[in-house]
Amino acid sequence: MVSRPMVVSALRSDALADGVRAALDADAGRVALRRFPDDETYVRFEDDPAGRDVVVVSDLHHPDAKTVALALLCAAARDLGARRVGLVAPYMPYMRQDARFKPLEGVTSRYYGRLLSGAVDWLVTVDPHLHRHASMSEVLTIPHRVASAAAEVAAWVKAHVPDPFLVGPDAESAQWAERIAGLAGAPHVVLEKTRRGDRDVEITVPDLERWRARTPVLVDDIVSTGTTLIETLGHARRAGLRPAVVVVIHALFSGDAWQRLEAARPARLVTCNAVPHLTNAIDLSGTIAAAVREVLD
Amino acid sequence: MVSRPMVVSALRSDALADGVRAALDADAGRVALRRFPDDETYVRFEDDPAGRDVVVVSDLHHPDAKTVALALLCAAARDLGARRVGLVAPYMPYMRQDARFKPLEGVTSRYYGRLLSGAVDWLVTVDPHLHRHASMSEVLTIPHRVASAAAEVAAWVKAHVPDPFLVGPDAESAQWAERIAGLAGAPHVVLEKTRRGDRDVEITVPDLERWRARTPVLVDDIVSTGTTLIETLGHARRAGLRPAVVVVIHALFSGDAWQRLEAARPARLVTCNAVPHLTNAIDLSGTIAAAVREVLD
Repeated sequence: MVSRPMVVSALRSDALADGVRAALDADAGRVALRRFPDDETYVRFEDDPAGRDVVVVSDLHHPDAKTVALALLCAAARDLGARRVGLVAPYMPYMRQDARFKPLEGVTSRYYGRLLSGAVDWLVTVDPHLHRHASMSEVLTIPHRVASAAAEVAAWVKAHVPDPFLVGPDAESAQWAERIAGLAGAPHVVLEKTRRGDRDVEITVPDLERWRARTPVLVDDIVSTGTTLIETLGHARRAGLRPAVVVVIHALFSGDAWQRLEAARPARLVTCNAVPHLTNAIDLSGTIAAAVREVLD
Repeated sequence: MVSRPMVVSALRSDALADGVRAALDADAGRVALRRFPDDETYVRFEDDPAGRDVVVVSDLHHPDAKTVALALLCAAARDLGARRVGLVAPYMPYMRQDARFKPLEGVTSRYYGRLLSGAVDWLVTVDPHLHRHASMSEVLTIPHRVASAAAEVAAWVKAHVPDPFLVGPDAESAQWAERIAGLAGAPHVVLEKTRRGDRDVEITVPDLERWRARTPVLVDDIVSTGTTLIETLGHARRAGLRPAVVVVIHALFSGDAWQRLEAARPARLVTCNAVPHLTNAIDLSGTIAAAVREVLD
């Protein structure tokens, strides 16, 4: 008889790992992960992973320090005899450096993907930022599945927003707006943005006048500095639209981005629980568990 | 004709990399390494590494965040066509978790060594904390050389301390005290310690009375919390010895350890420049360059 999988929640303390575990009918695997005074990571399993499929659910935003702790945890599971060690990383970092934009630059999406591929046997992520990479196969060398938040976001929009229309703040977010609009049975528009630096983005305003009887729902896959969404909220307001609802899959919020985004007065700001944040309102454990089941079978 | 090696100083800003470069008659390779607002690492070479032997000199104390940046830098060098990419890590982290002290613990020295072995082609380090591992071959799977600070420390002691005797604060530091004493032509004694936790160490006092006419030189490979050295300074003082000189190879100094160690009033506190610190007084670039030359040949 094959043992049930063991789900380990690492480097996050929210309900997502519990939800995935319940959906998989798996056991919880407890791990003690702490830092020595010199910031080296200590890892000890409290439940024996020998012979088990180990499913590690981990945050990877602000990835560098977490990645080593995670690699050591997974190496320990393998060393202790785990059957396979897989990683659920709802947010896949490093996807935006997906090309050499200047000579002699590192294409860190590929290097980071190879690094993770050396640490685990398989990977599941949610809506990775695929822009210049056609698929995660260009990044990972191990079996993987991509879960999508689109159905969950569409269901939330249908349940909470009357007469919605979906807005993708730029070309890169077009894919999310279109897919979610289709699933929610709502129309959508896509804006264009020009980026001048990490924190300097210009928005090109399309004709939004004809949407005045509906509620705009701005959707984006990632909020980091929040600049794009803040600008878009301003443009929507100046165009005389209803106050916009903002829905984001990956709530990175660097620095004071959340406060600045709230100050731009969205009608509501909600995020998926891919990255733990106080704005989390859309649960992804079901879609993630389905992807894990696929990769385990 | 083979190009001269290129020495890249990463994640440290002191003179060690310059010294190594000069001793190797190598070129300096400049690299831009910065963080995006979401803490992902950006890397770009400013000098082309194609066809070159790249020697990366990097700090690895507080290792987790640095290790990913370093792995991405080395992956970029390889991707850009470097001949070989080697790492000079004067301080080799994770060497103290060198056994499974409790059931289901990770033996992170081996996991971390394997992780580094995947990132670079060779490695040079200085006096790694070899205690339960017999050699670095139990940790690394790539070519490597171990440089020693013993000759440099012995020369400093001979030049700066009249009538010295070397003191190893515990059994683990016996190897350093004995070797340095031999090179300095001075006697040595070794104390014993019992560790009750990260910050709780008890020292067993040997008979120090017979050393009153000499200056004690406490030597240790690593200072982290400083607890062992602080206790030893106290015991030496209570035994009526002259104020002790403290010499450490790897100046980790977690938290306020340096201030606490200075408060224990050593006659002098000096460290090697393996880890950059204001107390650095002993230059290791010569012994490191010799080890790099060996591994490159």
